[in-house]
Amino acid sequence: MRLNDLIKQTCEWLKCSGPYSNIVISSRVRLARNLKGIPFSHWADTKKKEEVLMKVKDAVSSSSYTKNALFLYMADLNNLDKQFLIERHLISKEHALRANHKAVIVGDQEILSIMINEEDHLRTQVMQSGFNLDEAWQIIKRIDKDFEKKLDFAYSEDWGYLTACPTNTGTGLRASVMLHLPALVMSKQINKVLQAITKLSLTARGFYGEGTEASGNFFQISNQVTLGHSEEDLLDNINRIIKQVIGHEQNARRALFEQDRSRIEDRIWRAFATLKNAHIITSKEAVDLFSSVRLGVDMGILKGLDIQTINKIFIYIQPAHLQKLEGKTFSAQERDVKRAEFIRKELAKDMEDK
Amino acid sequence: MRLNDLIKQTCEWLKCSGPYSNIVISSRVRLARNLKGIPFSHWADTKKKEEVLMKVKDAVSSSSYTKNALFLYMADLNNLDKQFLIERHLISKEHALRANHKAVIVGDQEILSIMINEEDHLRTQVMQSGFNLDEAWQIIKRIDKDFEKKLDFAYSEDWGYLTACPTNTGTGLRASVMLHLPALVMSKQINKVLQAITKLSLTARGFYGEGTEASGNFFQISNQVTLGHSEEDLLDNINRIIKQVIGHEQNARRALFEQDRSRIEDRIWRAFATLKNAHIITSKEAVDLFSSVRLGVDMGILKGLDIQTINKIFIYIQPAHLQKLEGKTFSAQERDVKRAEFIRKELAKDMEDK
Repeated sequence: MRLNDLIKQTCEWLKCSGPYSNIVISSRVRLARNLKGIPFSHWADTKKKEEVLMKVKDAVSSSSYTKNALFLYMADLNNLDKQFLIERHLISKEHALRANHKAVIVGDQEILSIMINEEDHLRTQVMQSGFNLDEAWQIIKRIDKDFEKKLDFAYSEDWGYLTACPTNTGTGLRASVMLHLPALVMSKQINKVLQAITKLSLTARGFYGEGTEASGNFFQISNQVTLGHSEEDLLDNINRIIKQVIGHEQNARRALFEQDRSRIEDRIWRAFATLKNAHIITSKEAVDLFSSVRLGVDMGILKGLDIQTINKIFIYIQPAHLQKLEGKTFSAQERDVKRAEFIRKELAKDMEDK
Repeated sequence: MRLNDLIKQTCEWLKCSGPYSNIVISSRVRLARNLKGIPFSHWADTKKKEEVLMKVKDAVSSSSYTKNALFLYMADLNNLDKQFLIERHLISKEHALRANHKAVIVGDQEILSIMINEEDHLRTQVMQSGFNLDEAWQIIKRIDKDFEKKLDFAYSEDWGYLTACPTNTGTGLRASVMLHLPALVMSKQINKVLQAITKLSLTARGFYGEGTEASGNFFQISNQVTLGHSEEDLLDNINRIIKQVIGHEQNARRALFEQDRSRIEDRIWRAFATLKNAHIITSKEAVDLFSSVRLGVDMGILKGLDIQTINKIFIYIQPAHLQKLEGKTFSAQERDVKRAEFIRKELAKDMEDK
């Protein structure tokens, strides 16, 4: 597999095959790990970072879970490719910024990705479609165990796994879930829900993680604490809270539909019509409109439209995706035209298939 | 014919059959006339106003042009019917306000209407589709001549026809043309054009005449002067200027299409899509969107859509029309839902016919 093959496939987490995928886009578990006796990435010199790269590469090629994975040195990639990996949620913005002595490993169907020499020596993530942290945890646990046979991780009996930032020390685990909560936003209950989440040691962010805004009513909810609990306890806690959020969103959808059906139908049909007919569209407008369309499919208002098509379009209308699809760079204005073209074509295709 | 029959027909001026009907909706000529020896309506007492009504009714029933026309006493009409007549451009807002001792006469296909005891004793108007002031003038001239056999009009050798307001004295003629000028608005040339028109003794107003705003890029242009020129000279002058305005709009459409095709197509397709799919829509939004759709049909972007359908919808989505269609009154919110419903149904019907 090569980097350019990724654009031809729908990654696992966009497949909409998991539980509650009408509300939960994807679930992600990541583990932060560092190699014993080597300074954390930000303090390590060139030689040490190369040592990390070599050791991890060796472990990756000897594990049956990762030996066929795509191994990419960040320094070999151009800006478009780096942006493309960010858009696919395979690397962080931070990982793309200073590329030297960094790498990323991408597994089959993009379920697994490992950043090497980001803030920690290893940042391993497993993504699953829908609300499925348990499956993601089972997969990542096996990979982590396999790596531990080859790699000597920095670990303290008192603190657990040691990490560059103390907030990750302990289990090194972060579990996060990407939720689509349009009804909670429309009914103005979202702030109350997010405040409650914060009190329960969880945190809510936008679509691209830390420091990004919520657009299109998408919220990424994850645990803040990793220390002092077992991985299973942390997962139980977030699972329990996310289930409640899903319940609130379901109730809000039902209430909106019962109390304000015309207004909701109006919003959904207008959004769908605009996407099918626009000739110029910004990324922000498209994401906002697809949010309504996604709701419309779940509520049975838009029939014959496939949520997987929406997810696919959603990821492909991002700047780097659009440019890689056509194999050339475009100005922001040209992208707005190409984006509209792509959406029209894909929606027409989906309708034809029925 | 009864008042309630009007709603079942498409009036002449919406038929789009006249010259330049891609840019000019309709042409209208009206004559102001007063009966000799009777004070103008605002100064006349009840008895005098009844005398005017009687005399005009008599003339109307003996003229072959008007004997089959619908004769309506304003005092007999409820508010919905009065609003309906305003929406069809058959009476002025002023005529609906104080209804006593007033009447309106509506001829076949609504080509002719005569208000009795508005500002002047008679306000006769003839409407034609497209840019066709000449035909309107030929028709109204014959009717006026016929009335003159029966009615003794206030006339002075020095001043011409005498009228309540001095701005109408002379010929008593006002010629006006309803233009759709979206390209001049989009290309920001409209103010220059309207300023030039004002210097040439014409005036520009919104869709419902004096004191109304231009919405949906519709402008009503008419002569300001009626004194000191013959009717033919006045008509020649306005015809010449309107032809120039039409030329400017045609050039602006061509330029927009050549220079900014994507933006125009985007606007037109979005407007059409929204109209076909909205479930709640205000009058103002609908008029603005139909303005773009009308342009799209003329520019060949929207194919298979009939301009007559657009004109019909345009008039039927007004508040009184919507309510008379369903035979009951609605709140503003209910009307926004009914309006969207009507538009969706009519556009679907037009597409099916193809």
